Amino acid sequence: MVSYTPANFPHYDHQDAIVVVIDILRATSAICTAFMNGVEKIIPVKTVEEAEAYRNKGYLAAAERNGEKLDGFDMGNSPFDFDAATVQGKEVVLTTTNGTQAIAAAQNAYQVVIGSFLNISALCNYLVSQDRNVILLCAGWKNKYNMEDSIYAGAIVGELLKSDRFSTTCDSAIAASHIFGIANYDLYRFLDYSSHRIRLRQLKLEKDIRYCLQRDITDIIPVLKGDALVRMDESNSSMNHEITSARARH
Amino acid sequence: MVSYTPANFPHYDHQDAIVVVIDILRATSAICTAFMNGVEKIIPVKTVEEAEAYRNKGYLAAAERNGEKLDGFDMGNSPFDFDAATVQGKEVVLTTTNGTQAIAAAQNAYQVVIGSFLNISALCNYLVSQDRNVILLCAGWKNKYNMEDSIYAGAIVGELLKSDRFSTTCDSAIAASHIFGIANYDLYRFLDYSSHRIRLRQLKLEKDIRYCLQRDITDIIPVLKGDALVRMDESNSSMNHEITSARARH
Repeated sequence: MVSYTPANFPHYDHQDAIVVVIDILRATSAICTAFMNGVEKIIPVKTVEEAEAYRNKGYLAAAERNGEKLDGFDMGNSPFDFDAATVQGKEVVLTTTNGTQAIAAAQNAYQVVIGSFLNISALCNYLVSQDRNVILLCAGWKNKYNMEDSIYAGAIVGELLKSDRFSTTCDSAIAASHIFGIANYDLYRFLDYSSHRIRLRQLKLEKDIRYCLQRDITDIIPVLKGDALVRMDESNSSMNHEITSARARH
Repeated sequence: MVSYTPANFPHYDHQDAIVVVIDILRATSAICTAFMNGVEKIIPVKTVEEAEAYRNKGYLAAAERNGEKLDGFDMGNSPFDFDAATVQGKEVVLTTTNGTQAIAAAQNAYQVVIGSFLNISALCNYLVSQDRNVILLCAGWKNKYNMEDSIYAGAIVGELLKSDRFSTTCDSAIAASHIFGIANYDLYRFLDYSSHRIRLRQLKLEKDIRYCLQRDITDIIPVLKGDALVRMDESNSSMNHEITSARARH
Protein backbone atom coordinates (compact mmCIF):
# COMPACT_ATOMS: atom_id res chain seq x y z
CA MET A 1 0.00 0.00 0.00
CA VAL A 2 1.12 3.54 -0.68
CA SER A 3 0.38 6.47 1.62
CA TYR A 4 1.13 9.61 -0.36
CA THR A 5 1.56 11.85 2.69
CA PRO A 6 2.05 11.51 6.47
CA ALA A 7 -1.47 12.98 6.95
CA ASN A 8 -2.95 9.91 5.29
CA PHE A 9 -0.77 7.39 7.13
CA PRO A 10 -2.94 6.98 10.27
CA HIS A 11 -5.73 5.69 8.00
CA TYR A 12 -3.57 2.71 6.94
CA ASP A 13 -3.42 -0.39 9.12
CA HIS A 14 0.26 -0.20 9.99
CA GLN A 15 0.91 -1.87 13.34
CA ASP A 16 1.96 -5.18 11.78
CA ALA A 17 3.49 -3.70 8.64
CA ILE A 18 6.97 -2.81 7.50
CA VAL A 19 6.89 0.88 6.61
CA VAL A 20 9.30 2.23 4.01
CA VAL A 21 9.81 5.95 4.56
CA ILE A 22 10.49 7.77 1.30
CA ASP A 23 11.84 11.30 0.89
CA ILE A 24 13.88 11.04 -2.28
CA LEU A 25 14.78 14.77 -2.49
CA ARG A 26 16.63 14.56 -0.16
CA ALA A 27 16.28 13.25 3.38
CA THR A 28 16.17 9.50 2.81
CA SER A 29 18.86 9.71 0.11
CA ALA A 30 21.03 11.64 2.57
CA ILE A 31 20.39 9.08 5.33
CA CYS A 32 21.45 6.19 3.07
CA THR A 33 24.55 8.17 2.09
CA ALA A 34 25.46 8.80 5.72
CA PHE A 35 25.38 5.07 6.44
CA MET A 36 27.46 4.37 3.30
CA ASN A 37 29.98 6.78 4.81
CA GLY A 38 30.06 5.06 8.16
CA VAL A 39 27.76 7.07 10.38
CA GLU A 40 27.06 5.19 13.63
CA LYS A 41 23.47 6.25 14.12
CA ILE A 42 21.06 9.00 13.06
CA ILE A 43 18.46 10.33 15.47
CA PRO A 44 15.54 11.75 13.47
CA VAL A 45 13.61 14.49 15.30
CA LYS A 46 10.56 16.50 14.28
CA THR A 47 11.50 19.96 15.55
CA VAL A 48 14.44 22.32 15.24
CA GLU A 49 14.34 22.75 19.03
CA GLU A 50 14.93 19.03 19.59
CA ALA A 51 17.82 19.10 17.13
CA GLU A 52 19.33 22.09 18.97
CA ALA A 53 19.07 20.23 22.28
CA TYR A 54 21.06 17.30 20.85
CA ARG A 55 23.57 19.72 19.28
CA ASN A 56 24.08 21.32 22.66
CA LYS A 57 24.87 17.87 24.08
CA GLY A 58 27.67 17.49 21.51
CA TYR A 59 25.96 15.61 18.67
CA LEU A 60 26.66 16.46 15.06
CA ALA A 61 23.45 18.21 14.04
CA ALA A 62 21.70 18.49 10.65
CA ALA A 63 18.69 20.71 10.08
CA GLU A 64 16.83 21.66 6.91
CA ARG A 65 13.66 23.65 6.30
CA ASN A 66 12.21 24.48 2.87
CA GLY A 67 15.25 23.05 1.10
CA GLU A 68 17.85 25.10 2.98
CA LYS A 69 20.33 24.29 5.74
CA LEU A 70 19.52 26.18 8.91
CA ASP A 71 22.10 28.55 10.37
CA GLY A 72 24.05 27.22 13.32
CA PHE A 73 23.84 23.57 12.26
CA ASP A 74 26.64 21.35 10.96
CA MET A 75 24.70 20.05 7.98
CA GLY A 76 21.46 20.45 6.01
CA ASN A 77 19.91 17.53 4.17
CA SER A 78 22.12 17.40 1.08
CA PRO A 79 23.70 13.94 0.68
CA PHE A 80 26.99 15.77 0.05
CA ASP A 81 26.90 17.09 3.63
CA PHE A 82 27.23 13.52 4.93
CA ASP A 83 30.70 12.62 3.61
CA ALA A 84 32.92 10.16 5.43
CA ALA A 85 35.23 12.84 6.82
CA THR A 86 32.23 14.43 8.52
CA VAL A 87 30.12 11.50 9.71
CA GLN A 88 32.25 8.34 10.05
CA GLY A 89 31.74 6.79 13.47
CA LYS A 90 29.55 9.70 14.58
CA GLU A 91 26.07 9.99 16.03
CA VAL A 92 24.02 12.56 14.12
CA VAL A 93 20.72 14.25 14.91
CA LEU A 94 18.59 15.20 11.88
CA THR A 95 15.45 17.27 11.34
CA THR A 96 13.98 18.01 7.90
CA THR A 97 10.83 19.61 6.46
CA ASN A 98 9.17 16.35 5.52
CA GLY A 99 11.32 13.23 5.90
CA THR A 100 11.76 13.21 9.65
CA GLN A 101 8.06 14.06 10.07
CA ALA A 102 7.23 10.92 8.10
CA ILE A 103 9.57 8.79 10.25
CA ALA A 104 7.83 10.13 13.35
CA ALA A 105 4.39 9.35 11.88
CA ALA A 106 5.46 5.74 11.27
CA GLN A 107 7.15 5.02 14.57
CA ASN A 108 4.47 2.64 15.87
CA ALA A 109 4.69 0.34 12.88
CA TYR A 110 6.20 -3.14 13.16
CA GLN A 111 9.36 -1.88 11.49
CA VAL A 112 10.48 1.36 9.83
CA VAL A 113 13.09 1.22 7.06
CA ILE A 114 14.56 3.94 4.88
CA GLY A 115 14.14 3.82 1.11
CA SER A 116 15.94 5.65 -1.67
CA PHE A 117 17.02 4.89 -5.21
CA LEU A 118 20.51 4.45 -3.76
CA ASN A 119 19.50 1.21 -1.98
CA ILE A 120 16.41 0.19 -3.98
CA SER A 121 17.42 -3.36 -4.97
CA ALA A 122 18.69 -4.30 -1.51
CA LEU A 123 15.50 -2.92 -0.01
CA CYS A 124 13.24 -4.80 -2.42
CA ASN A 125 15.13 -8.05 -1.78
CA TYR A 126 14.68 -7.52 1.93
CA LEU A 127 10.94 -6.77 1.64
CA VAL A 128 10.38 -9.86 -0.51
CA SER A 129 12.25 -11.96 2.07
CA GLN A 130 9.85 -10.93 4.84
CA ASP A 131 6.32 -12.27 5.30
CA ARG A 132 4.90 -8.87 6.07
CA ASN A 133 2.51 -6.32 4.71
CA VAL A 134 4.40 -3.33 3.36
CA ILE A 135 3.31 0.31 3.47
CA LEU A 136 5.24 2.78 1.33
CA LEU A 137 5.05 6.13 3.13
CA CYS A 138 5.88 9.10 0.95
CA ALA A 139 7.06 12.11 2.93
CA GLY A 140 5.53 14.38 0.31
CA TRP A 141 5.76 18.15 0.70
CA LYS A 142 3.98 19.54 3.77
CA ASN A 143 1.29 16.88 3.55
CA LYS A 144 0.79 17.32 -0.17
CA TYR A 145 1.49 14.64 -2.79
CA ASN A 146 4.88 14.89 -4.41
CA MET A 147 6.11 13.40 -7.59
CA GLU A 148 9.55 11.98 -6.83
CA ASP A 149 8.43 10.08 -3.74
CA SER A 150 5.41 8.69 -5.57
CA ILE A 151 7.53 7.57 -8.52
CA TYR A 152 9.87 5.75 -6.16
CA ALA A 153 6.90 4.09 -4.43
CA GLY A 154 5.72 2.97 -7.85
CA ALA A 155 9.14 1.46 -8.59
CA ILE A 156 8.95 -0.57 -5.36
CA VAL A 157 5.37 -1.68 -6.10
CA GLY A 158 6.47 -2.96 -9.49
CA GLU A 159 9.35 -4.94 -7.98
CA LEU A 160 7.24 -6.45 -5.18
CA LEU A 161 4.48 -7.53 -7.57
CA LYS A 162 7.06 -9.59 -9.47
CA SER A 163 7.13 -11.81 -6.38
CA ASP A 164 4.18 -14.12 -5.81
CA ARG A 165 4.30 -13.13 -2.15
CA PHE A 166 2.68 -9.80 -2.95
CA SER A 167 -0.56 -8.65 -4.45
CA THR A 168 -2.48 -5.40 -4.10
CA THR A 169 -5.87 -3.84 -4.69
CA CYS A 170 -4.61 -0.53 -3.28
CA ASP A 171 -5.47 2.24 -5.76
CA SER A 172 -2.56 4.44 -4.72
CA ALA A 173 -0.12 1.57 -5.31
CA ILE A 174 -1.58 0.90 -8.76
CA ALA A 175 -1.48 4.62 -9.64
CA ALA A 176 2.11 4.99 -8.41
CA SER A 177 3.12 2.02 -10.50
CA HIS A 178 1.56 3.62 -13.61
CA ILE A 179 3.34 6.92 -12.95
CA PHE A 180 6.66 5.14 -12.50
CA GLY A 181 6.02 3.37 -15.81
CA ILE A 182 5.75 6.76 -17.53
CA ALA A 183 8.65 8.35 -15.62
CA ASN A 184 11.14 5.49 -15.80
CA TYR A 185 12.25 6.26 -19.34
CA ASP A 186 14.11 9.28 -17.98
CA LEU A 187 13.46 10.09 -14.31
CA TYR A 188 15.52 13.26 -14.39
CA ARG A 189 13.63 14.73 -17.32
CA PHE A 190 10.25 13.51 -16.07
CA LEU A 191 10.79 15.46 -12.87
CA ASP A 192 11.60 18.59 -14.83
CA TYR A 193 8.24 20.19 -14.04
CA SER A 194 7.72 18.76 -10.55
CA SER A 195 7.28 21.24 -7.74
CA HIS A 196 10.23 20.24 -5.58
CA ARG A 197 12.58 19.94 -8.55
CA ILE A 198 11.72 23.55 -9.40
CA ARG A 199 12.28 24.52 -5.74
CA LEU A 200 15.69 22.84 -5.65
CA ARG A 201 16.67 24.25 -9.03
CA GLN A 202 16.11 27.72 -7.66
CA LEU A 203 18.45 26.75 -4.81
CA LYS A 204 21.02 25.52 -7.39
CA LEU A 205 20.78 21.91 -6.23
CA GLU A 206 20.72 20.10 -9.59
CA LYS A 207 23.80 18.12 -8.53
CA ASP A 208 21.86 16.77 -5.54
CA ILE A 209 18.97 15.70 -7.76
CA ARG A 210 21.20 13.77 -10.15
CA TYR A 211 22.90 12.10 -7.17
CA CYS A 212 19.60 11.09 -5.54
CA LEU A 213 18.30 9.46 -8.74
CA GLN A 214 21.23 7.00 -8.95
CA ARG A 215 20.26 3.38 -8.33
CA ASP A 216 21.94 0.74 -6.23
CA ILE A 217 25.09 2.39 -5.04
CA THR A 218 24.68 0.69 -1.63
CA ASP A 219 23.18 -2.45 -0.08
CA ILE A 220 22.67 -0.78 3.29
CA ILE A 221 19.15 -0.51 4.67
CA PRO A 222 18.81 1.99 7.53
CA VAL A 223 16.27 0.79 10.09
CA LEU A 224 14.65 2.52 13.07
CA LYS A 225 15.64 0.95 16.40
CA GLY A 226 14.19 2.77 19.36
CA ASP A 227 14.65 6.45 18.62
CA ALA A 228 17.57 6.09 16.22
CA LEU A 229 18.24 4.88 12.70
CA VAL A 230 20.96 2.24 12.55
CA ARG A 231 22.39 0.05 9.82
CA MET A 232 20.36 -3.13 9.41
CA ASP A 233 22.34 -6.32 9.82
CA GLU A 234 21.25 -9.94 10.15
CA SER A 235 20.92 -9.68 13.89
CA ASN A 236 18.42 -6.84 13.80
CA SER A 237 16.61 -7.47 10.54
CA SER A 238 13.61 -8.94 12.34
CA MET A 239 13.87 -6.50 15.24
CA ASN A 240 12.41 -7.60 18.54
CA HIS A 241 9.13 -8.77 17.09
CA GLU A 242 8.01 -12.27 16.20
CA ILE A 243 7.22 -12.81 12.55
CA THR A 244 3.88 -14.58 12.55
CA SER A 245 2.04 -13.67 9.38
CA ALA A 246 1.38 -16.19 6.67
CA ARG A 247 1.57 -14.79 3.17
CA ALA A 248 2.09 -11.05 3.04
CA ARG A 249 -0.49 -9.02 1.16
CA HIS A 250 0.19 -5.36 0.62
CA MET B 1 -4.51 21.69 -7.55
CA VAL B 2 -5.67 18.23 -6.62
CA SER B 3 -6.21 17.08 -3.03
CA TYR B 4 -6.50 13.29 -3.15
CA THR B 5 -8.33 12.98 0.18
CA PRO B 6 -10.21 15.19 2.65
CA ALA B 7 -7.34 14.63 5.15
CA ASN B 8 -4.98 16.52 2.82
CA PHE B 9 -7.39 19.34 2.05
CA PRO B 10 -6.58 21.61 5.03
CA HIS B 11 -3.00 21.82 3.71
CA TYR B 12 -4.21 23.50 0.51
CA ASP B 13 -4.84 27.24 0.45
CA HIS B 14 -8.58 27.10 -0.22
CA GLN B 15 -10.26 30.20 1.16
CA ASP B 16 -10.25 32.03 -2.16
CA ALA B 17 -10.60 28.96 -4.33
CA ILE B 18 -13.45 27.19 -6.07
CA VAL B 19 -13.45 23.64 -4.74
CA VAL B 20 -14.81 20.85 -6.92
CA VAL B 21 -15.93 17.95 -4.72
CA ILE B 22 -15.50 14.61 -6.49
CA ASP B 23 -16.98 11.27 -5.45
CA ILE B 24 -17.61 9.56 -8.76
CA LEU B 25 -18.78 6.22 -7.29
CA ARG B 26 -21.33 7.37 -6.35
CA ALA B 27 -22.23 10.42 -4.24
CA THR B 28 -21.48 13.28 -6.63
CA SER B 29 -22.93 11.36 -9.58
CA ALA B 30 -26.09 10.79 -7.53
CA ILE B 31 -26.27 14.46 -6.56
CA CYS B 32 -26.04 15.57 -10.21
CA THR B 33 -28.72 13.03 -11.10
CA ALA B 34 -31.03 14.30 -8.36
CA PHE B 35 -30.83 17.84 -9.78
CA MET B 36 -31.43 16.51 -13.30
CA ASN B 37 -34.59 14.98 -11.87
CA GLY B 38 -35.76 18.19 -10.27
CA VAL B 39 -34.73 17.95 -6.63
CA GLU B 40 -35.13 21.33 -4.92
CA LYS B 41 -32.14 21.13 -2.60
CA ILE B 42 -29.85 18.56 -1.02
CA ILE B 43 -28.55 19.02 2.49
CA PRO B 44 -25.28 17.11 2.87
CA VAL B 45 -24.52 16.02 6.45
CA LYS B 46 -21.58 14.13 7.93
CA THR B 47 -23.32 11.78 10.34
CA VAL B 48 -26.18 9.30 10.23
CA GLU B 49 -27.59 10.94 13.35
CA GLU B 50 -27.91 14.30 11.58
CA ALA B 51 -29.63 12.59 8.65
CA GLU B 52 -32.05 10.88 11.05
CA ALA B 53 -32.87 14.21 12.67
CA TYR B 54 -33.82 15.68 9.26
CA ARG B 55 -35.79 12.53 8.39
CA ASN B 56 -37.75 12.91 11.60
CA LYS B 57 -38.62 16.46 10.53
CA GLY B 58 -40.14 15.08 7.32
CA TYR B 59 -37.28 15.39 4.83
CA LEU B 60 -36.61 12.67 2.28
CA ALA B 61 -33.48 11.06 3.69
CA ALA B 62 -30.62 9.24 1.94
CA ALA B 63 -27.88 7.41 3.85
CA GLU B 64 -25.06 5.15 2.68
CA ARG B 65 -22.16 3.55 4.48
CA ASN B 66 -19.60 1.21 2.90
CA GLY B 67 -21.52 1.08 -0.36
CA GLU B 68 -24.86 0.07 1.13
CA LYS B 69 -28.11 1.92 1.85
CA LEU B 70 -28.82 2.09 5.56
CA ASP B 71 -32.01 0.57 6.93
CA GLY B 72 -34.79 3.01 7.69
CA PHE B 73 -33.77 5.55 5.04
CA ASP B 74 -35.56 6.38 1.81
CA MET B 75 -32.49 6.15 -0.41
CA GLY B 76 -28.83 5.14 -0.42
CA ASN B 77 -26.35 6.81 -2.79
CA SER B 78 -27.18 5.03 -6.03
CA PRO B 79 -28.07 7.52 -8.77
CA PHE B 80 -31.05 5.27 -9.54
CA ASP B 81 -32.50 6.06 -6.11
CA PHE B 82 -32.89 9.71 -7.15
CA ASP B 83 -35.45 9.36 -9.95
CA ALA B 84 -37.93 12.13 -10.74
CA ALA B 85 -40.87 10.33 -9.15
CA THR B 86 -38.97 10.26 -5.89
CA VAL B 87 -37.15 13.60 -5.72
CA GLN B 88 -38.87 16.17 -7.96
CA GLY B 89 -39.54 19.35 -5.99
CA LYS B 90 -38.31 17.76 -2.78
CA GLU B 91 -35.71 18.69 -0.18
CA VAL B 92 -33.39 15.77 0.53
CA VAL B 93 -30.87 15.15 3.28
CA LEU B 94 -27.86 13.01 2.33
CA THR B 95 -25.01 11.36 4.22
CA THR B 96 -22.40 9.09 2.58
CA THR B 97 -19.17 7.36 3.55
CA ASN B 98 -16.91 9.80 1.75
CA GLY B 99 -18.68 12.35 -0.43
CA THR B 100 -20.51 14.32 2.21
CA GLN B 101 -17.39 14.26 4.40
CA ALA B 102 -15.51 15.95 1.56
CA ILE B 103 -18.23 18.60 1.16
CA ALA B 104 -17.98 19.33 4.89
CA ALA B 105 -14.19 19.61 4.70
CA ALA B 106 -14.50 22.19 1.89
CA GLN B 107 -17.24 24.34 3.35
CA ASN B 108 -15.01 27.35 4.11
CA ALA B 109 -13.81 27.65 0.54
CA TYR B 110 -14.89 30.55 -1.68
CA GLN B 111 -17.29 28.24 -3.48
CA VAL B 112 -18.04 24.51 -3.45
CA VAL B 113 -19.36 22.86 -6.61
CA ILE B 114 -20.17 19.23 -7.38
CA GLY B 115 -18.32 17.40 -10.14
CA SER B 116 -19.10 14.17 -11.95
CA PHE B 117 -18.63 12.79 -15.45
CA LEU B 118 -22.33 13.52 -15.92
CA ASN B 119 -21.72 17.31 -15.93
CA ILE B 120 -17.99 17.47 -16.78
CA SER B 121 -18.14 19.81 -19.80
CA ALA B 122 -20.52 22.28 -18.17
CA LEU B 123 -18.35 22.29 -15.08
CA CYS B 124 -15.13 22.88 -17.04
CA ASN B 125 -16.73 25.71 -19.00
CA TYR B 126 -17.82 27.30 -15.73
CA LEU B 127 -14.36 26.94 -14.13
CA VAL B 128 -12.68 28.47 -17.18
CA SER B 129 -15.14 31.39 -17.06
CA GLN B 130 -14.14 32.27 -13.49
CA ASP B 131 -10.92 34.05 -12.50
CA ARG B 132 -10.30 31.77 -9.56
CA ASN B 133 -7.88 29.17 -8.32
CA VAL B 134 -9.43 25.72 -8.49
CA ILE B 135 -8.91 22.87 -6.04
CA LEU B 136 -10.13 19.44 -7.09
CA LEU B 137 -11.03 17.61 -3.88
CA CYS B 138 -11.29 13.86 -4.27
CA ALA B 139 -13.48 12.24 -1.63
CA GLY B 140 -11.33 9.12 -1.82
CA TRP B 141 -12.13 6.15 0.40
CA LYS B 142 -11.87 6.81 4.13
CA ASN B 143 -9.00 9.24 3.58
CA LYS B 144 -7.16 6.95 1.19
CA TYR B 145 -6.49 7.73 -2.46
CA ASN B 146 -8.98 6.25 -4.84
CA MET B 147 -8.71 5.68 -8.54
CA GLU B 148 -11.99 6.87 -10.04
CA ASP B 149 -11.93 10.24 -8.27
CA SER B 150 -8.30 10.79 -9.24
CA ILE B 151 -8.97 9.92 -12.88
CA TYR B 152 -11.81 12.43 -12.95
CA ALA B 153 -9.57 15.08 -11.38
CA GLY B 154 -7.03 14.34 -14.12
CA ALA B 155 -9.70 14.83 -16.78
CA ILE B 156 -10.54 18.25 -15.35
CA VAL B 157 -6.86 19.22 -15.12
CA GLY B 158 -6.41 18.38 -18.79
CA GLU B 159 -9.40 20.49 -19.80
CA LEU B 160 -8.37 23.48 -17.67
CA LEU B 161 -4.81 23.44 -18.99
CA LYS B 162 -6.18 23.88 -22.52
CA SER B 163 -7.19 27.37 -21.37
CA ASP B 164 -4.44 29.96 -21.04
CA ARG B 165 -6.09 31.06 -17.80
CA PHE B 166 -4.69 28.03 -16.02
CA SER B 167 -1.26 26.62 -15.27
CA THR B 168 -0.02 24.31 -12.55
CA THR B 169 3.13 23.09 -10.86
CA CYS B 170 1.05 20.92 -8.53
CA ASP B 171 2.46 17.38 -8.59
CA SER B 172 -0.85 15.74 -7.77
CA ALA B 173 -2.52 17.56 -10.67
CA ILE B 174 0.22 16.45 -13.06
CA ALA B 175 0.05 12.86 -11.80
CA ALA B 176 -3.76 12.77 -12.05
CA SER B 177 -3.52 14.04 -15.60
CA HIS B 178 -1.09 11.23 -16.50
CA ILE B 179 -3.35 8.60 -14.93
CA PHE B 180 -6.35 9.95 -16.83
CA GLY B 181 -4.30 9.74 -20.01
CA ILE B 182 -3.77 6.03 -19.40
CA ALA B 183 -7.33 5.36 -18.22
CA ASN B 184 -9.22 7.36 -20.84
CA TYR B 185 -8.97 4.71 -23.56
CA ASP B 186 -11.55 2.68 -21.62
CA LEU B 187 -12.46 4.02 -18.18
CA TYR B 188 -14.68 1.06 -17.34
CA ARG B 189 -11.98 -1.50 -18.05
CA PHE B 190 -9.23 0.60 -16.46
CA LEU B 191 -11.19 0.60 -13.21
CA ASP B 192 -11.53 -3.18 -13.33
CA TYR B 193 -8.95 -3.69 -10.60
CA SER B 194 -9.65 -0.59 -8.54
CA SER B 195 -10.62 -1.13 -4.93
CA HIS B 196 -14.04 0.51 -4.97
CA ARG B 197 -15.02 -1.10 -8.27
CA ILE B 198 -14.32 -4.47 -6.67
CA ARG B 199 -16.34 -3.41 -3.61
CA LEU B 200 -19.32 -2.34 -5.75
CA ARG B 201 -19.09 -5.45 -7.94
CA GLN B 202 -19.49 -7.56 -4.83
CA LEU B 203 -22.61 -5.52 -4.09
CA LYS B 204 -23.82 -6.14 -7.68
CA LEU B 205 -23.64 -2.46 -8.64
CA GLU B 206 -22.08 -2.75 -12.11
CA LYS B 207 -25.07 -0.87 -13.55
CA ASP B 208 -24.30 2.08 -11.25
CA ILE B 209 -20.68 2.13 -12.38
CA ARG B 210 -21.57 2.24 -16.07
CA TYR B 211 -24.07 5.01 -15.37
CA CYS B 212 -21.56 7.11 -13.40
CA LEU B 213 -18.96 6.94 -16.19
CA GLN B 214 -21.27 8.55 -18.77
CA ARG B 215 -20.22 12.04 -19.85
CA ASP B 216 -22.28 15.15 -20.33
CA ILE B 217 -25.82 14.03 -19.74
CA THR B 218 -26.54 17.31 -17.93
CA ASP B 219 -25.41 20.95 -17.84
CA ILE B 220 -26.45 21.39 -14.21
CA ILE B 221 -23.78 22.34 -11.67
CA PRO B 222 -24.86 21.78 -8.06
CA VAL B 223 -23.36 24.45 -5.78
CA LEU B 224 -23.25 24.77 -1.98
CA LYS B 225 -25.25 27.73 -0.70
CA GLY B 226 -25.28 27.92 3.09
CA ASP B 227 -25.82 24.38 4.30
CA ALA B 228 -27.53 23.08 1.16
CA LEU B 229 -26.66 22.15 -2.39
CA VAL B 230 -28.77 23.97 -4.96
CA ARG B 231 -28.80 24.18 -8.73
CA MET B 232 -26.42 26.89 -9.95
CA ASP B 233 -28.01 29.55 -12.09
CA GLU B 234 -26.74 32.89 -13.33
CA SER B 235 -27.93 34.69 -10.25
CA ASN B 236 -25.91 32.55 -7.86
CA SER B 237 -22.94 31.56 -9.97
CA SER B 238 -20.71 34.08 -8.23
CA MET B 239 -22.36 33.55 -4.85
CA ASN B 240 -22.19 36.41 -2.39
CA HIS B 241 -18.49 37.04 -2.87
CA GLU B 242 -16.75 39.61 -4.97
CA ILE B 243 -14.55 38.23 -7.71
CA THR B 244 -11.34 40.16 -7.40
CA SER B 245 -8.48 37.95 -8.58
CA ALA B 246 -6.53 38.72 -11.69
CA ARG B 247 -5.46 35.70 -13.67
CA ALA B 248 -6.30 32.42 -11.99
CA ARG B 249 -3.46 30.03 -11.36
CA HIS B 250 -4.27 26.58 -10.08
